[in-house]
Amino acid sequence: MTVEPAAARPGRGRRPAAEVRAAVLAAAGAMLLENGLRDITFEKVATRAGASKMTLYKWWPSPGALAFDAYFAATEQTLAFDDTGDLEADLTRQLHAFVGFLTSREHGPVVAELVGAAQSDPDLAAAFAERYTLPRRALAVTRLRTARDAGQLRPDVDLESVVDQLWGACYHRLLLPACPLDTDFADTLVRNLLAGIR
Amino acid sequence: MTVEPAAARPGRGRRPAAEVRAAVLAAAGAMLLENGLRDITFEKVATRAGASKMTLYKWWPSPGALAFDAYFAATEQTLAFDDTGDLEADLTRQLHAFVGFLTSREHGPVVAELVGAAQSDPDLAAAFAERYTLPRRALAVTRLRTARDAGQLRPDVDLESVVDQLWGACYHRLLLPACPLDTDFADTLVRNLLAGIR
Repeated sequence: MTVEPAAARPGRGRRPAAEVRAAVLAAAGAMLLENGLRDITFEKVATRAGASKMTLYKWWPSPGALAFDAYFAATEQTLAFDDTGDLEADLTRQLHAFVGFLTSREHGPVVAELVGAAQSDPDLAAAFAERYTLPRRALAVTRLRTARDAGQLRPDVDLESVVDQLWGACYHRLLLPACPLDTDFADTLVRNLLAGIR
Repeated sequence: MTVEPAAARPGRGRRPAAEVRAAVLAAAGAMLLENGLRDITFEKVATRAGASKMTLYKWWPSPGALAFDAYFAATEQTLAFDDTGDLEADLTRQLHAFVGFLTSREHGPVVAELVGAAQSDPDLAAAFAERYTLPRRALAVTRLRTARDAGQLRPDVDLESVVDQLWGACYHRLLLPACPLDTDFADTLVRNLLAGIR
């Protein structure tokens, strides 16, 4: 995609802010998938999007926060969580999809890099928590609560901890790799937790 | 600690390599605890340690890998894992210590930054896996295997997955913070997994 700088568009005046924003996100999203997070600087993205570097500084607190926006604008994450009434089947299906996402060549490295960069970028960490981690946890907890209310889980189960022992366990294999992150692993996580290991 | 550059040590000749290495690790370790990972560049560490920048390039593949060495030289991680015969008590004690480590002001941020940087630094990732993740997993699996052999765990339990559902769940709350990472959480993880949540 070629985007002419605003200054090179004689007679057409300033682009509307929404258009500039879309061009910036498209440029950053493409750069992120091409070369990863280390390529994302305000300067490079501004040049590629034909936008002013100052605009980017005004709109995003850090290059990491811009990369996060770009990534999620590009990928249209689906947050759906099935409720067929069969908790084990629903958890397994969701975790298979999640493992597929984390291990895809397109998404896995970008998610790992964004989580990684968030460890030293508080603005990126805040964006990640608010717009990714917390809403996804909430959907999982809602599904688990339905199961608990239906008597399919012990009444005293701490639902948040279940999220850490299913999805968190998958992140662990992504971020501190040691063993395969695959659908067999997902099945084992669900089985361990539902039935207990004792 | 003040270390004179080699050039300022007339008549004393070159420092032995082991001494230079110790000075570099001490300098990098102090800088890491003072200002975090972003402060660690070969140039700054070389200056502080009175060493040649080229030496650092020769000895470490990346500043992240140097930071990792410095951190683990400084902290003397204890890898002990009790075996009192009571699996639940031993897991709980180990996880309490681990949560204390991850939430300490001294260690938590450095570990999070090192794991984070490893997502875009293959040399750091390799060092982390080889010298931290894998040996720690092996100790936990050994303890779990003893319990399984003693009939305290189901004979078909996948022991590696248990590591992800206990220690990995703690890393999840460190790296994608959303809920408290404390000893109550550790207790819940052990209870969920041993007894099952159904």
